Amino acid sequence: MTGNTRQLFELAGAEDARKTSPFCWRIRFALRHKRLQFDSLPWRRVEKERLSATGQGKVPVLIDGDRTIHDSWQIAEYLDSQYPDLPLLFFGDTGKDKARLTGQTIRFTVNWVDHSLIRALRNIVSHGSIEVSAEKDKEFYTNKLQTVHGVDLPTVGGSDGHLSHLSGVLEPMRLTLQTQPYLGGSSPSYADFAVAGAFAWARSVSPIKLLEDSDPLYIWRARMFDKFHHDLTETTGYPL
Amino acid sequence: MTGNTRQLFELAGAEDARKTSPFCWRIRFALRHKRLQFDSLPWRRVEKERLSATGQGKVPVLIDGDRTIHDSWQIAEYLDSQYPDLPLLFFGDTGKDKARLTGQTIRFTVNWVDHSLIRALRNIVSHGSIEVSAEKDKEFYTNKLQTVHGVDLPTVGGSDGHLSHLSGVLEPMRLTLQTQPYLGGSSPSYADFAVAGAFAWARSVSPIKLLEDSDPLYIWRARMFDKFHHDLTETTGYPL
Repeated sequence: MTGNTRQLFELAGAEDARKTSPFCWRIRFALRHKRLQFDSLPWRRVEKERLSATGQGKVPVLIDGDRTIHDSWQIAEYLDSQYPDLPLLFFGDTGKDKARLTGQTIRFTVNWVDHSLIRALRNIVSHGSIEVSAEKDKEFYTNKLQTVHGVDLPTVGGSDGHLSHLSGVLEPMRLTLQTQPYLGGSSPSYADFAVAGAFAWARSVSPIKLLEDSDPLYIWRARMFDKFHHDLTETTGYPL
Repeated sequence: MTGNTRQLFELAGAEDARKTSPFCWRIRFALRHKRLQFDSLPWRRVEKERLSATGQGKVPVLIDGDRTIHDSWQIAEYLDSQYPDLPLLFFGDTGKDKARLTGQTIRFTVNWVDHSLIRALRNIVSHGSIEVSAEKDKEFYTNKLQTVHGVDLPTVGGSDGHLSHLSGVLEPMRLTLQTQPYLGGSSPSYADFAVAGAFAWARSVSPIKLLEDSDPLYIWRARMFDKFHHDLTETTGYPL
């Protein structure tokens, strides 16, 4: 704790420095992009009472002075609207109105990350998610993966079928990178942070190699992770 | 032919009025959105020589006065840049620069249509594609579906598995429609036309019911098709 008035509740594994939520990762990247300092508050799934002041049972939760904001999309919108003069997530350089417009146009991409990409990754990394989780979270995770997500635990873990499904899900992004360096165009937008957050989560929980070195996505991911170099080196994860 | 200086080569089935390409449909919708008149030139897959002046073997091809433009994305960009004062496809209301920026942010969505959505639909409607095609195109279609697209013809045709896969592919769009009426936000953008074009193509070639009446996508599609009422009633297709 450095005494910042800005604090981010982030899901953590057994170690505080192992950040294990794709939704928290994208907000971490969003805060760095906007150059906003914050203290990280490691949180575990069963610690509902620590979030009771927010009325929420989920992270990320951002405390910014006397404001408390939950839900990653709402936090992103809050950050652009509260700090319109800092680098934008839903960018444009003419302020709030343009930011809002572009936010709607990339909402689909973020929903694709939340539904299709994270689901495809979860089938591969779910074993790891349980292994690296805090002891008190293990039962929660095992139940949630099986009952909520329908992940068949005995069969998961980077089978050829799951890796090939992931590759197919990623194809629209691969096609996009043929004509522009980022989903946002010539520079990364919140959509890029959402995808990078999903890969950062996967790196935190699983040693399975997800992308071939020759994949345009491998190169894109390396560029994104380089941009957030300190977040990657200061946290716990597997080599890519 | 009404003697327009603007002409659109569109893929047609056995009947001239049966428009059988999702990529041509989105450009038809784009031209209507911009309120640009055009003559439709029905074209069949084997008629390569009719496009030889364009250097292309595929439609859509737009002839606009002395300009010839091919590839649906390039045509869309051309239309916004050539006619920036007409309703924009990559919208915004401050002209060309903003239009270009937003175009990059929705490129992913259009690539998702081209790869994931059209592929999921093709598995369901491919039988119909061959049935309604012009006699001289049937061999081309049969070969292409089997060899290029890997569609297993004897097993296709709206099986529960294919319909359920389609529903899963569409889930990110369904989530988006929970918070905004169109992919473009409060009004449709080129991304909406790309999805509507895929459904218009499916309607042209297959009687299989793709969406439940209670699906938010069913309601969105009805709203889009209503906007392009004349295109739907003037062309040949199956009831939805």
